[in-house]
Parts: sequence; C-alpha cells; structure tokens
Amino acid sequence: MENVVVYYFPFKGLGEGIRMLLTYGGQKFDDHRVPKEQWPDFKPKTPFGQMPVLEVNGKKMSQTLAICRYLGRKYGIAGENPEEAFEIDQNMDFFTDIRVKASTVMLEQDPAVKQRIKDDLEKNYYPVALKKLDEIIGNNNGHIANGKLSWGDFVIAGAYDAIKNLLLQMPELDEKYPNIKKLKENVLSLPKVKEYVATSAPKTEM
Amino acid sequence: MENVVVYYFPFKGLGEGIRMLLTYGGQKFDDHRVPKEQWPDFKPKTPFGQMPVLEVNGKKMSQTLAICRYLGRKYGIAGENPEEAFEIDQNMDFFTDIRVKASTVMLEQDPAVKQRIKDDLEKNYYPVALKKLDEIIGNNNGHIANGKLSWGDFVIAGAYDAIKNLLLQMPELDEKYPNIKKLKENVLSLPKVKEYVATSAPKTEM
Ligand SMILES: N[C@@H](CCC(=O)N[C@@H](CS)C(=O)NCC(=O)O)C(=O)O
Ligand SMILES: N[C@@H](CCC(=O)N[C@@H](CS)C(=O)NCC(=O)O)C(=O)O
Repeated sequence: MENVVVYYFPFKGLGEGIRMLLTYGGQKFDDHRVPKEQWPDFKPKTPFGQMPVLEVNGKKMSQTLAICRYLGRKYGIAGENPEEAFEIDQNMDFFTDIRVKASTVMLEQDPAVKQRIKDDLEKNYYPVALKKLDEIIGNNNGHIANGKLSWGDFVIAGAYDAIKNLLLQMPELDEKYPNIKKLKENVLSLPKVKEYVATSAPKTEM
Repeated sequence: MENVVVYYFPFKGLGEGIRMLLTYGGQKFDDHRVPKEQWPDFKPKTPFGQMPVLEVNGKKMSQTLAICRYLGRKYGIAGENPEEAFEIDQNMDFFTDIRVKASTVMLEQDPAVKQRIKDDLEKNYYPVALKKLDEIIGNNNGHIANGKLSWGDFVIAGAYDAIKNLLLQMPELDEKYPNIKKLKENVLSLPKVKEYVATSAPKTEM
C-alpha cells in the first residue's frame, strides 16, 4: 500500500488498533488526528459519518473491524483456515457487543437515565460478560482467539484505556480481569508497536 | 458439514439469514426453534448467552455476522479477493450499527425514555442512515456490496421484517427505501430459498 492515511480523533479509542496494526505491518502512514472542532466539517466527507477512516491511495475505508480484518489478512494474522478466521470474528463480535453496550452510557444525555443504565450494566451485564471475555483470553494464551496473535488483539489493546476510563468508568478493570490487561500488554510489547507507543501514540487517558 | 442444528427463537430476526444461507448451500439442518419459555434454561448452554447459535458436529458457534461470513466462504459468496471481502464486511458493520441503534428502542423499559429515543432516532438518525443504506444497495444492483450476491444479503433479508415491524416500527420502510426491499426480494427469489420460505420459514411478523 502506498499512500496511507488514518483519520481519527486525537485519542486512542477505536483508531489505535488500526494505527498499531499498520505499525506492526511496517506500513508508513499519515496519522491524521482530527480535532473535535474540525469534526463537523469532516464528518460528511467520511463514508458513514464516523471515524476511524483508513484512506489507501485515495480510497476511504470505514468500520473498525472490517478494516482490521483486512489488514490482518495482509499481515498473516487473520487465522490459518476458515475455522480460525471464524474464531477471531466470533470473539471480536462479542467484544463489540460489550463495547457498544458500554458506549450507551456515554451517549445518554439525561443524568438520571445515564445512572440507571450504568447501574444496570454494572449489576447485570459486565460481571457476566467481562468475566466471559477474561476467560476466553485466559484460555487463549493472552489472545482473543486460537491461542495466538491476531488482528483482534490490536483492536482490544487499542480500545482498552477508553473502555476502562470512559465507558465502564471501571478503574478496577485491571485487577478484576487480569487476562484482558495481559492481552493489552502482549500487543504493546511487540517490538515495533513498543517503539511506536513510546514515540508517537496519543498520550491520552482514552 | 454433517450434523447441523440452528438454534434461534421461533421467528426470523437474526436467525433467518443463517437458515436461508444453509438452504442456499444445500445443507440439511435441524431448525431448532427455542420457545421463549425454554430460553432461560437454554441461555447458559450458549457460548455468549444469546442466539442464534449454529451447531456443527456438536460444536456451538455464535455471532450472526461471524457465522454468516463463515458459511459465505464455504458457499463462495464472501468476495473474490480481500478488497471484495472488505466491502461486504464494511457495509455489514454499517447495517449492524443501524440494527443495534434500532434495538435500543425495543430494549428500553421506561415508556417515556423509549418514546424519546425513538423520536430522536426517527428525526436525527434513520433519515440519514437508512437513506445511505438504500443508496449503497441501489449502487450495488440490489445487493449490499460488489454488485452481486453475498452472505451479507442473507442477513439483511432475514432481519428485514423484524427491523420493519418491531425495531423501527416503520411500516413505510418499503416505500421510503425501495432498494432495501429489493435486496430482500432478490434473496427470497433464489430458487432453493423460495421453496424454503414457502414451506418451512417462520410465518411471523418479525
Ligand atoms: N461501527 C463503527 C463505529 C465508529 C464510531 O462509533 N465512531 C465514533 C468515535 S469512536 C464517531 O465517529 N463518533 C462521532 C460521530 O458519530 O459523529 C466502527 O466500528 O468503526
Ligand atoms: N451480537 C449478537 C447479538 C445476538 C442477539 O442480540 N440475540 C438476541 C435475539 S436477536 C438474544 O439472544 N436475546 C436474548 C437474551 O439476550 O437473553 C449476534 O450478532 O448474534
């Protein structure tokens, strides 16, 4: 790929998995961080009115999982057969179910409703879902599937801080679910990724 | 695949795309429709506490998109190269964004909040998002991507009635977004699928 641009907000969130995957693949890219003030102007220029967007030789690609699966195939970390590819896809759709549920808290404007949704998730959903996610990673040697590195790991590692600080507002994520934290550390200690994080990644809480 | 079972509720929803894909692939399957009363017992036996579940020779697979992509590969309708595969994935993730937003209305219990979410989506989200989806399908010859049949079409065609009647409560879906309806008709008129729908599909509103 020649001319590669990543468009995302100036934090990690859903964009960081793409940035780290490109880094892992040795792909140079223009890391275009769109400030909040410029977003209304840029929004209509994206395929679906959202970021992240990956631009390759002028062609704009959208949707985090679709982009990361595509890059994963290019870099040989998308499963070695249809069954392995399925396992990554399945577990990443489960991760997305959790991420999307958590984001409903952030998106809700009415403070009372926000609190009610948050309490309900913390009581009835996270304890089961995050425990399940933690177990899956524990059973897969610190990865989301197949006991080895895949594109899915990059998405989770990139979104980890956002989920921890913003969405779940769950500072105890590290202690309660050590395998999820381990997965993040596994990705961040890959040599090229480690250097990127030290020198270029957003130094943000999310 | 030898011993194949589909587990889903006794309606179309997210299960119907899988049922129609298996039918298209000439795969015999046990169409196990779990009644609401039996769901609490069965829920803990599923991988993530949700349906649809596809069981192949005793192995339970979960997550609609992951399952349908897997079957799509088997049946040669998952794109002919990484770019085509990406295009299906991207547009199906967009479809899922819409479906999940719509389902927040159904899941909300408080009638006043439910009405407020519904009004907000109808005013600010659906007109843009459904128009975009309709345009994509219009530009792709009545399909979700690449101008031809793919596994994604089956998911949308299967979920169409549920989205129309239950989630969006938008009876005018047919008139306002004729290309989405056209996609559904394209899938339902495939010879094997047509016979399955006439003889075996759930005769339900959703
Ligand atoms: N399904 C999309 C979701 C993308 C998304 O939620 N993007 C957010 C930022 S994390 C966004 O662009 N928000 C601004 C807006 O919607 O105007 C994906 O996976 O890429
Ligand atoms: N991300 C999942 C969502 C599955 C889902 O929402 N399933 C619903 C029915 S459509 C369900 O099982 N609800 C019952 C429950 O959660 O207890 C998928 O794509 O398969």
